[in-house]
Amino acid sequence: MVSKQDKAYYEQLWADLGVDVPLHDQLIRGLAVLERRLHRKQKNRPEKMDYFNKVLNDLHGHRIAEMVEHKKQGGKVVGSYCVFIPEDMVLAADGIHVGLCAGSSFPVQEAEKVLPRNTCPLIKSSFGYKYIKACPYTEASDLIVGETTCDGKTKMFEILEDYHPTYVIEVPQRKNSRNQDVFTAELLDFKLQLENLTGNKITAENLKNATSKVENKFKALQRLFKLRQADPAPISGLDVLTITQIGFQDDVKRFTQQVNALCDELEERVRDGVGVAPKGAPRILISGSPMSLPNWRLHSMLEKAGAVVVCEESCVGTRLFSYTSEPQSDSLEDQIAAIGQRHMSINCACFTPNQGRIDDVLRMAEEYQVDGVIHYTLQFCHTFNNEGTKMEQALDTAGIPLLRVEADYSDDDSGQLKTRVEAFLELLEDKKTNVE
Amino acid sequence: MVSKQDKAYYEQLWADLGVDVPLHDQLIRGLAVLERRLHRKQKNRPEKMDYFNKVLNDLHGHRIAEMVEHKKQGGKVVGSYCVFIPEDMVLAADGIHVGLCAGSSFPVQEAEKVLPRNTCPLIKSSFGYKYIKACPYTEASDLIVGETTCDGKTKMFEILEDYHPTYVIEVPQRKNSRNQDVFTAELLDFKLQLENLTGNKITAENLKNATSKVENKFKALQRLFKLRQADPAPISGLDVLTITQIGFQDDVKRFTQQVNALCDELEERVRDGVGVAPKGAPRILISGSPMSLPNWRLHSMLEKAGAVVVCEESCVGTRLFSYTSEPQSDSLEDQIAAIGQRHMSINCACFTPNQGRIDDVLRMAEEYQVDGVIHYTLQFCHTFNNEGTKMEQALDTAGIPLLRVEADYSDDDSGQLKTRVEAFLELLEDKKTNVE
Repeated sequence: MVSKQDKAYYEQLWADLGVDVPLHDQLIRGLAVLERRLHRKQKNRPEKMDYFNKVLNDLHGHRIAEMVEHKKQGGKVVGSYCVFIPEDMVLAADGIHVGLCAGSSFPVQEAEKVLPRNTCPLIKSSFGYKYIKACPYTEASDLIVGETTCDGKTKMFEILEDYHPTYVIEVPQRKNSRNQDVFTAELLDFKLQLENLTGNKITAENLKNATSKVENKFKALQRLFKLRQADPAPISGLDVLTITQIGFQDDVKRFTQQVNALCDELEERVRDGVGVAPKGAPRILISGSPMSLPNWRLHSMLEKAGAVVVCEESCVGTRLFSYTSEPQSDSLEDQIAAIGQRHMSINCACFTPNQGRIDDVLRMAEEYQVDGVIHYTLQFCHTFNNEGTKMEQALDTAGIPLLRVEADYSDDDSGQLKTRVEAFLELLEDKKTNVE
Repeated sequence: MVSKQDKAYYEQLWADLGVDVPLHDQLIRGLAVLERRLHRKQKNRPEKMDYFNKVLNDLHGHRIAEMVEHKKQGGKVVGSYCVFIPEDMVLAADGIHVGLCAGSSFPVQEAEKVLPRNTCPLIKSSFGYKYIKACPYTEASDLIVGETTCDGKTKMFEILEDYHPTYVIEVPQRKNSRNQDVFTAELLDFKLQLENLTGNKITAENLKNATSKVENKFKALQRLFKLRQADPAPISGLDVLTITQIGFQDDVKRFTQQVNALCDELEERVRDGVGVAPKGAPRILISGSPMSLPNWRLHSMLEKAGAVVVCEESCVGTRLFSYTSEPQSDSLEDQIAAIGQRHMSINCACFTPNQGRIDDVLRMAEEYQVDGVIHYTLQFCHTFNNEGTKMEQALDTAGIPLLRVEADYSDDDSGQLKTRVEAFLELLEDKKTNVE
């Protein structure tokens, strides 16, 4: 809990950033309610979740204070909404990189005054937080860096720049070598942009250090996910999703240490056969559109119904951390090209074709001993929704049960979704019984 | 009217192409009803519309017979859905290029069995026609050439290739020089693709001839549109829209001659002050998503209510024909680069940013002496729908009334749309009265 003294201090901090404090207060109260209802109701959680619980309870407090202090020292904060923005380049320029608020329905109604209603909720939420000034991370950002990963976002950034300093990196539509070159050139432009913003040069040395920091975070998350392959799963999907979400905002080094500390505990659990759900509980892989904090509904629903989510093939999941850069030399140019290659390896639905994503899901379904896959699409997300068609065919051929879910951020369809989820889990149980 | 003898002949032709003839018969009957209700009800039409009326009444007849004959001689037919596919390159390889069926709700319900429901109707219709085999042009195509102009289409083409030979050209997201290079490289790949398909080499000479043919068509359409700047307008918007739509399927040379013959007549009309609506009738520019044949509803509604549509800022309008290629030399490479440049000049909402489109509309509003602009968006078309926000601001500043319309292909909302359109026209009349 945040003390009254802290609260007054933070409120001043938020106000100074330009946050609408009374509105933000509503937001924070809503988050606290959710955390009590979802996270705390879980049983048999690892002790090392303590750190992440504290961060979650102080989501816009301590970390914002760190950013404000950084800004006071002349440092800059760079916000983004996508795994295609290389955090290490921001760190190399002595900036702080932060993933911005985008996961709640809180600002959606206001956003619809400007954006078309039939836009995906993540985009409406991203823009909405800026529009109503309710996200301290957005307000703390000296620059928002957008990208062209989908039409909705691309066009939203054109509008956002009327409200906030915005810079857009072009993410190509294909993975061939000429597009690889385009993306590397975009990153070289981004380097100049960061140098202008921060007044600091990005060098081969500071970039190498920053990349090592960021990729150590990736490796810690890889380790965390690998531990979920055990049966029983040593940690809930809801907790891992929350950790991954926190990783977009927390200090890289501290976060990495805490994830590794948790992994140490989970290794013991795996060794001792300790799980969050009984051995044999239905194991679910969720694949599709990203789930930004606090988009916890599907995970909670599944795990309350007795299943366990063991993997997210998502930007808030494996697409974030599965690749590392392998520069051909220590030169700055080669390092940046390797960072470009790292991101162009991501099997995002922004690419055409994107068979790699289907191959990933088939492979992960085996690695994580999955009983069923949920293809999750944010409403009006054309790219992932269409890929669902090919995913359905591929999983059908492989004999892996699939449930396609399309949802926005409202709770209006929770009843219907719960029924579908429970029916899917029954189907998985039946299938298991028949096999055994 | 098509004679009984012709009908039997055509039905055999369609059946041989693989068309579902009974289904296609329903489609054709529906089109004939629409043409009688909309086109024929118009008054004071130019005599030279005769040719286009005949084509419309025989839409899948004579032209399909020409294509089948071409195929019998070893020629190939290349179908597409977008102005970014260079028709001249297809012609240079001695192919026939044809714009494919995409404008009717006829196959939408079936398409929704595969594609997400909340996809734009043009995309569902395009795919649907293939899925139910109801478009003879689609069935006659040896290759369908797609493009990456929006997420919905890009992802639809990934699915379409399971149903029809499909090739996709990458249209970049920005207009900078590296993207210009990407597009030129894409066209060089497309050249090889066409050469493989047809067995014919594309040379500097045959490409130059083909470009000249295609750009003569563009110039005829420019001439036609310029004549609409007169008050009273010498031809209805519905007729011009239909002509432009027919231009995607008709023989280039014949179509160009017929448009020019019509323009000769329209010049006389302008000289004599003859119009389709009285001088001073509200003049409307429609800007936005493309209207494929038979998407005539908005034009008809406006013109039945006493307005006249004088310009379409659309792919089935100015974006199609406003640019010509200016090669730096006679070399094949320079010609292809110039064709690339021609298409990269188009101010399509697929580009970010796309201020050029707003500038175009402001300029055209003046050139065409427009009283009001309708921003037309196909439902779920993120790119144009979002641009509506900036368009609204720009036209507001310029004092030009704007109505934003988002519609699909169904008639469900016709009552509501009619009310909005009539209210908008009243507003324009009031504004005129106040000024005078």
